[in-house]
Amino acid sequence: MRIIMNPIGVIHSPYKEAKDMPIQGTFKPEVEAWVELKAEYGRGLAGLEGFSHAIILYYFHKSNTEQIQGRPFLEDQMHGIFAIRSPHRPNHIGLSVVRICAIEGNKLYFREVDVLDGTVVLDIKPYVKYFDVRDNVVSGWLDKHFKDGRAPDRTIVK
Amino acid sequence: MRIIMNPIGVIHSPYKEAKDMPIQGTFKPEVEAWVELKAEYGRGLAGLEGFSHAIILYYFHKSNTEQIQGRPFLEDQMHGIFAIRSPHRPNHIGLSVVRICAIEGNKLYFREVDVLDGTVVLDIKPYVKYFDVRDNVVSGWLDKHFKDGRAPDRTIVK
Repeated sequence: MRIIMNPIGVIHSPYKEAKDMPIQGTFKPEVEAWVELKAEYGRGLAGLEGFSHAIILYYFHKSNTEQIQGRPFLEDQMHGIFAIRSPHRPNHIGLSVVRICAIEGNKLYFREVDVLDGTVVLDIKPYVKYFDVRDNVVSGWLDKHFKDGRAPDRTIVK
Repeated sequence: MRIIMNPIGVIHSPYKEAKDMPIQGTFKPEVEAWVELKAEYGRGLAGLEGFSHAIILYYFHKSNTEQIQGRPFLEDQMHGIFAIRSPHRPNHIGLSVVRICAIEGNKLYFREVDVLDGTVVLDIKPYVKYFDVRDNVVSGWLDKHFKDGRAPDRTIVK
């Protein structure tokens, strides 16, 4: 079984390469980017303006390798690909929770950006408090890097 | 540009059809299901056992229509497809946050299930407190259905 997907739009981002991009958008929250949907999908954004956040699913177009285990940026130990957020994963789907700034026609402006310019968008979903936000979350190997709620030093790719 | 994806595994769920399935797994939290990954991907789960939750991305294999607007189950008004979680969406990618129960070999057992038996899995990601959980979330048209933090009456498909 093979599944064929078609891009629904593209992301315009100030990050032209991985250098200087934060590992997650919340670490550089002031940066703004936007999704430009194909014209026929503009109507699909109706109602999203009432949400504070969205989930963007996209294609890691810069990765052409598939690793079963990898070393995450924050540390030197290897982990399974399903325990890290590396782009070098089966099917190369990326996921970001972003803060919605504005919606104008077929454009969705957002902050909390961790996506490269030119990234192909596969889907946008509303981020819903009642089932996407969980309490008592334990975050595996990441917890030791965020002691006392502080962001770690290595959050910006250099 | 067309993107080809390959299933990495399948979900075994007690829900054989949409009837009696909750609209989101948190509304029937005691139900258990599991992902059975293809054998070669079992090593990719290493390290995920330290997380309380995972994000499963899957293919809505029962939908063969693409709607730009739709009526969500909870209400009678139409919204853009990117403001609802309907399966009848471009590229038919589904997303569920689930509670991890156990990992054994190439199997991931989980609760908070809202996925049909036989659903094809595209990716699994660790759910990370530091960038997947957001504060001050506003949930658009859904908020009026969850007044005072209570789940609405229409959370089980009948």
